[in-house]
Amino acid sequence: MPGPDIIIAVDAMSGDRGCEPVVRAAESAVSENRALRIVLLGSKAILEAFLMRDHERIEVIDASQVVTMDERPSHALRHKQSSSMAAALRMVAEGRADGCVSAGNTGALMAMGRSILRTYPGIDRPAIIKRVPSFTTPTYVLDLGANVDAGAENLFQYAVMGSLMARAIEGIENPRVALLNVGAEDVKGNEQVRLASHMLASQSTVHYIGYIEGDDLFRGVADVVVCDGFVGNIALKTGEGVAELLRDLIRLSFTRGWYGRLIGLLAAPLLKRLGRRMDPALHNGASFIGLRGVVIKSHGNADTTGLNAAIHQACSEVEQGIPKRLSESLEQIDF
Amino acid sequence: MPGPDIIIAVDAMSGDRGCEPVVRAAESAVSENRALRIVLLGSKAILEAFLMRDHERIEVIDASQVVTMDERPSHALRHKQSSSMAAALRMVAEGRADGCVSAGNTGALMAMGRSILRTYPGIDRPAIIKRVPSFTTPTYVLDLGANVDAGAENLFQYAVMGSLMARAIEGIENPRVALLNVGAEDVKGNEQVRLASHMLASQSTVHYIGYIEGDDLFRGVADVVVCDGFVGNIALKTGEGVAELLRDLIRLSFTRGWYGRLIGLLAAPLLKRLGRRMDPALHNGASFIGLRGVVIKSHGNADTTGLNAAIHQACSEVEQGIPKRLSESLEQIDF
Repeated sequence: MPGPDIIIAVDAMSGDRGCEPVVRAAESAVSENRALRIVLLGSKAILEAFLMRDHERIEVIDASQVVTMDERPSHALRHKQSSSMAAALRMVAEGRADGCVSAGNTGALMAMGRSILRTYPGIDRPAIIKRVPSFTTPTYVLDLGANVDAGAENLFQYAVMGSLMARAIEGIENPRVALLNVGAEDVKGNEQVRLASHMLASQSTVHYIGYIEGDDLFRGVADVVVCDGFVGNIALKTGEGVAELLRDLIRLSFTRGWYGRLIGLLAAPLLKRLGRRMDPALHNGASFIGLRGVVIKSHGNADTTGLNAAIHQACSEVEQGIPKRLSESLEQIDF
Repeated sequence: MPGPDIIIAVDAMSGDRGCEPVVRAAESAVSENRALRIVLLGSKAILEAFLMRDHERIEVIDASQVVTMDERPSHALRHKQSSSMAAALRMVAEGRADGCVSAGNTGALMAMGRSILRTYPGIDRPAIIKRVPSFTTPTYVLDLGANVDAGAENLFQYAVMGSLMARAIEGIENPRVALLNVGAEDVKGNEQVRLASHMLASQSTVHYIGYIEGDDLFRGVADVVVCDGFVGNIALKTGEGVAELLRDLIRLSFTRGWYGRLIGLLAAPLLKRLGRRMDPALHNGASFIGLRGVVIKSHGNADTTGLNAAIHQACSEVEQGIPKRLSESLEQIDF
């Protein structure tokens, strides 16, 4: 017997590539998941023009404003309450959707999320968390840019939330939590990181394993890696940039000269499998954790494949009941 | 007619791998550069035991102490003035060597460098700068970990020094200087970065082009990228970690299954060329810029190849007369 439908509200207007890839991603997502219903928020006239045909599980709700990428969060908060972004968050707050997805301005999404959905007790600020593939087991990294000046208290709260997330989604009993730092020794790092390390070492709720460095970020040595949003954003984007650069280099190696082209042809199946493991679009979609509801942030310039992955991620967090489990677990923690 | 000899002082004791790879690197470096003379600092008994034979261009000078990797910089400064690290720096300060190389504790090297060599007028703190390979032109990135809490003034000084370095070594007339940030828009970033951006935009000595994000770090969009040492250290190590991971994945793809092994054999020359471009050992060695003298910091766990590259980098900075050119250029800048 099929379970109840999952409703995901999708902000269709705020990404870098406009609304067409969002509409295509919604169409493919509902065809891939028969329990999924999508509400597209944005200009009704434009969105309906892009929709291939009437789809019984895709609804369009008009939202007249758009939050721009260079808008100050405070400005969006004051003047863009009728935007597609605010409307998507409000659907979750009012229980009319189970979760939402936006490819828009991160700072504005954070500010509006805090104002419309609010955070859980004990959590001062939400964080952006992402499941990052590694050689062995995946790693949850947070914060990836929700806040650019986290104090030790914030880092501690991130550790608690990340640990709960890894437990809920990956089923790891006691996830290994590490702090990202410039060295593995005690004396290394800035004040916030050293203080957070001290706080984590003095409690037993989170299985704290100490510092890790950047080169261990994708090695699966920890289940959860905690850092300030400024550092996390730059580290993850640098990693993605290097992966993309190397994909280009490999492609070049196997398309240049007659020998390169010949080997490239013979190696095509291997390269294709390798390419799939390295494709960032398949890993698109990060969660705002700490908000009372499922909010998925897609890359601003995500294409249809990337946006589709972000919608499926929202579904999977709803299916796993992340908000409820997070809230229950947080109640048991003495902050 | 050969020019005067270059003398490089090498701290042979402070790296993670002990002194054997240092001795081997010194032997290969002097055989590759006939103008090079090396002074190895460390335990005379141990170093002479490792030296294959008497070499007229390798001298050993005894230094009784070793700075350990987990030692506090302040402790090293007070209690390790007879260490191989301090002795190497002192050779430069006293004009008995043209430059020095150490694979030791970064914080201690920084503290001792500031105390023994001092910084140029106008420079509050030295930075670690490294030439990073990219798809197109190389990029100089700083700071990579000399200071973990740079203010806007420090970032500004890094920009000036990085620009001078790119001009001196790469011969770029007007190097493009960017600040590393979490977004390209004006409103993004933490306070220090935004203030530094404002300072850089209000002057004309440095050709400031604005913000870049992590994924552009290895794309050659700027000649110099400036960031806080905490961020730079983690970004660079993350990039190196991803490159290493992908090298392993490629190797795995071409060694598994009979088809993979066959293609791997045929593709060997292409993969070898690719591997060379991705080999971090060939890019080992970062400079402490801002100190009055050439100081090269090698990765702590560098092998013979890596240490050899660091020694050659010291030679090349001496040949280019970096300290003198930096000092002359800094005199013309109104801080």
